[in-house]
Amino acid sequence: MHPSKTLPELRINDERLVADFKELQFIGGTENGGSSRVALSPEDLAARDWFANRIEDAGLELRDDDAGNLSGVYLSQQPHARTLLVGSHLDSVPNGGHYDGVIGVLSALECVRTLREAQVDLPLHVEAINFTDDEGNYQPMFGCRALSGLISPAALSDLEMDNGPFRAAMLRAGMMPSRAHYARRRPQDLAGYLEVHIEQGVRLERAGKPIGVVQGIVGRTNYEFTFIGEAGHSGTTDMYKRRDALRGAALFITRAHDLIRERFGDGIFNCGDIQVKPGVFNVIPAEARLVVELRHVDERIMAEMEREITAIAQQCAASTGLDTPPTVATVTHMPAAQMTDGTIRAFEDACDELGCTHRRLISYAGHSAQILSQMIPCGMIFIPSVGGISHHPSEFSEWDVVIAGANVLLRTVIRTALA
Amino acid sequence: MHPSKTLPELRINDERLVADFKELQFIGGTENGGSSRVALSPEDLAARDWFANRIEDAGLELRDDDAGNLSGVYLSQQPHARTLLVGSHLDSVPNGGHYDGVIGVLSALECVRTLREAQVDLPLHVEAINFTDDEGNYQPMFGCRALSGLISPAALSDLEMDNGPFRAAMLRAGMMPSRAHYARRRPQDLAGYLEVHIEQGVRLERAGKPIGVVQGIVGRTNYEFTFIGEAGHSGTTDMYKRRDALRGAALFITRAHDLIRERFGDGIFNCGDIQVKPGVFNVIPAEARLVVELRHVDERIMAEMEREITAIAQQCAASTGLDTPPTVATVTHMPAAQMTDGTIRAFEDACDELGCTHRRLISYAGHSAQILSQMIPCGMIFIPSVGGISHHPSEFSEWDVVIAGANVLLRTVIRTALA
Repeated sequence: MHPSKTLPELRINDERLVADFKELQFIGGTENGGSSRVALSPEDLAARDWFANRIEDAGLELRDDDAGNLSGVYLSQQPHARTLLVGSHLDSVPNGGHYDGVIGVLSALECVRTLREAQVDLPLHVEAINFTDDEGNYQPMFGCRALSGLISPAALSDLEMDNGPFRAAMLRAGMMPSRAHYARRRPQDLAGYLEVHIEQGVRLERAGKPIGVVQGIVGRTNYEFTFIGEAGHSGTTDMYKRRDALRGAALFITRAHDLIRERFGDGIFNCGDIQVKPGVFNVIPAEARLVVELRHVDERIMAEMEREITAIAQQCAASTGLDTPPTVATVTHMPAAQMTDGTIRAFEDACDELGCTHRRLISYAGHSAQILSQMIPCGMIFIPSVGGISHHPSEFSEWDVVIAGANVLLRTVIRTALA
Repeated sequence: MHPSKTLPELRINDERLVADFKELQFIGGTENGGSSRVALSPEDLAARDWFANRIEDAGLELRDDDAGNLSGVYLSQQPHARTLLVGSHLDSVPNGGHYDGVIGVLSALECVRTLREAQVDLPLHVEAINFTDDEGNYQPMFGCRALSGLISPAALSDLEMDNGPFRAAMLRAGMMPSRAHYARRRPQDLAGYLEVHIEQGVRLERAGKPIGVVQGIVGRTNYEFTFIGEAGHSGTTDMYKRRDALRGAALFITRAHDLIRERFGDGIFNCGDIQVKPGVFNVIPAEARLVVELRHVDERIMAEMEREITAIAQQCAASTGLDTPPTVATVTHMPAAQMTDGTIRAFEDACDELGCTHRRLISYAGHSAQILSQMIPCGMIFIPSVGGISHHPSEFSEWDVVIAGANVLLRTVIRTALA
């Protein structure tokens, strides 16, 4: 069948998509209506088995790699065809929801099944892929990092951290930890990566649009600030002579939140944890260690945020009588990623073709496309999350937008393949 | 020997006091020059053995009770004499110093030895006592609380907390946990309690006075504030829609410190620990639990501080968008204690008699006299701590003030007995 004839009418199978979703809900479903399918858990392995069965049922090529990424490939008839990756992840956070990741994998599966059923002849292989440990039960975005060649054999050793539990889980899943880096794919073999995901925010809901076309994914910097004071008897030490590390840290948290809201409207600040030493009610805190996160889609503004936050930490230490400036360690720096212009336009054209309204937006969460965009053209769409709720059992999206997302994905796959 | 003739010349034995101190330094001495003699540890038990041997060497009456309090008593010849307690504690905090508590026990021992050597006939028994677990390795001020009748059999059960380790330690030390409440003494049998202790502050050092006469001991209230927010994805949740429990808690810590400094000059505020849930870098804090301490010597002002601090916690929760006011639990309320006027004057007269300058002051630390003053007249003096350092290996007091403190104690014991 030549694509130009029948392709404009091609749609994914709504009922099958919904049926798949409902089956998968029972794998790792929790009492409170959520989903616990952390990477390489028995529940995650069961979900992968289920996915493999769907791929084989559909007569697709089943493929897995040394990092546990699992795919169903609709092969092109053309020799030396490159591969267009379409996918997401089936693992969840502990006690998470049913939509995050799942919608992307099921939509991708629906795309390749639909293409195969219609016997569409495309010049690219289309591969529906489930990435291993996107949520970071062991190592965040492990599967797509391995595929991108970013996992070295040392990343799975115990040289820098305790990877014993991860190695054991891989072995239980039939993977060889020492071979994970062989999951690397060559950029010249890949045509790009496409993904549909829930928004995990309320911008689409507020705008009343079913599709958000992602322009870029925010960069993320994680710092560890350690404020250093001096322990002392909480009763007998003069209030004006104290060097209270927690007082300095508390002022910093307060001022950092204010700074980002006042000066960096599109920026994100989070302080998710603080550890106090010695941590006793009647001892003045000698040390307060904070885990801080900054996000921005513009690397230049991100650098400015980093400078300002670090300066404020120093000011807060000084103004609360801490002689020593806080130490700063960069735990992670994940650069901001831009989605490819051509893919953004392909998604928008597909939306227009299907009569779906859309808007462009920025992703404030990290996704595989952030990693893969360093290697290949990437594009991503969001569908609305009701109430913006995510990583929670009450995560929910309406069926019409789920189905719309899958059809936009299908049309974009075809547009990309034929471009 | 009739007291009126020779008593004014009676002095403790300086050299013996210094020699005792130096021997005791080796029991639980640490590599860094400090002392680790936590209650009922092998080191603490060795120190008690050493103390028992000194009591027997001196021909004093050795006494112990069911709470492990250990005493040397110089018995009065008079029938039905009441007992004047003089003492402190030999246990230390982990990696503490050599002076806290020890100076009080050794000075008390010196008093009873000196009285016995001089065969002074007093109308009171004088009892040099070492209280069990003053520093709270298991239960703070356990020994003096038991003596005051404040330990119920339930306090050593596992009904409300895990007392297994404490019970095991008591059994190892030859004590029966189920009998600890028999350590209770009848108020009508006791004439009072006197103690010398290091100041753990710098007021005497600054004033250049060797003796501080304690007027009162601050009350202490420990609260646990729990700020309640809502977890959420740190990247995708709108910065203006967050309910970040740690942000509320940080603002509270900052404002509470300012409030006490600005409005309650003699008050103490400490926030010694904070626990954040879920405590993950990329999740908005859903809960922040703070351990907060207030101290003031005036119960009325203390009540005002408690009201203001609680109100500020509520304001901070509201102003950072937390819908739920923080929960407040009172962990401890130890009322402020006044020392007895007669004892204060007896200490001051003794100082004047010996030519020691002195000043009155308030104790910002808790001491046995705080417990015992609920039952019997109590008095306490401080000697200067160099640099105010305490609960630290570099805790230090000069020999001349240690000896002066012991002699003031001796004269006050005699004054009290003869009053």
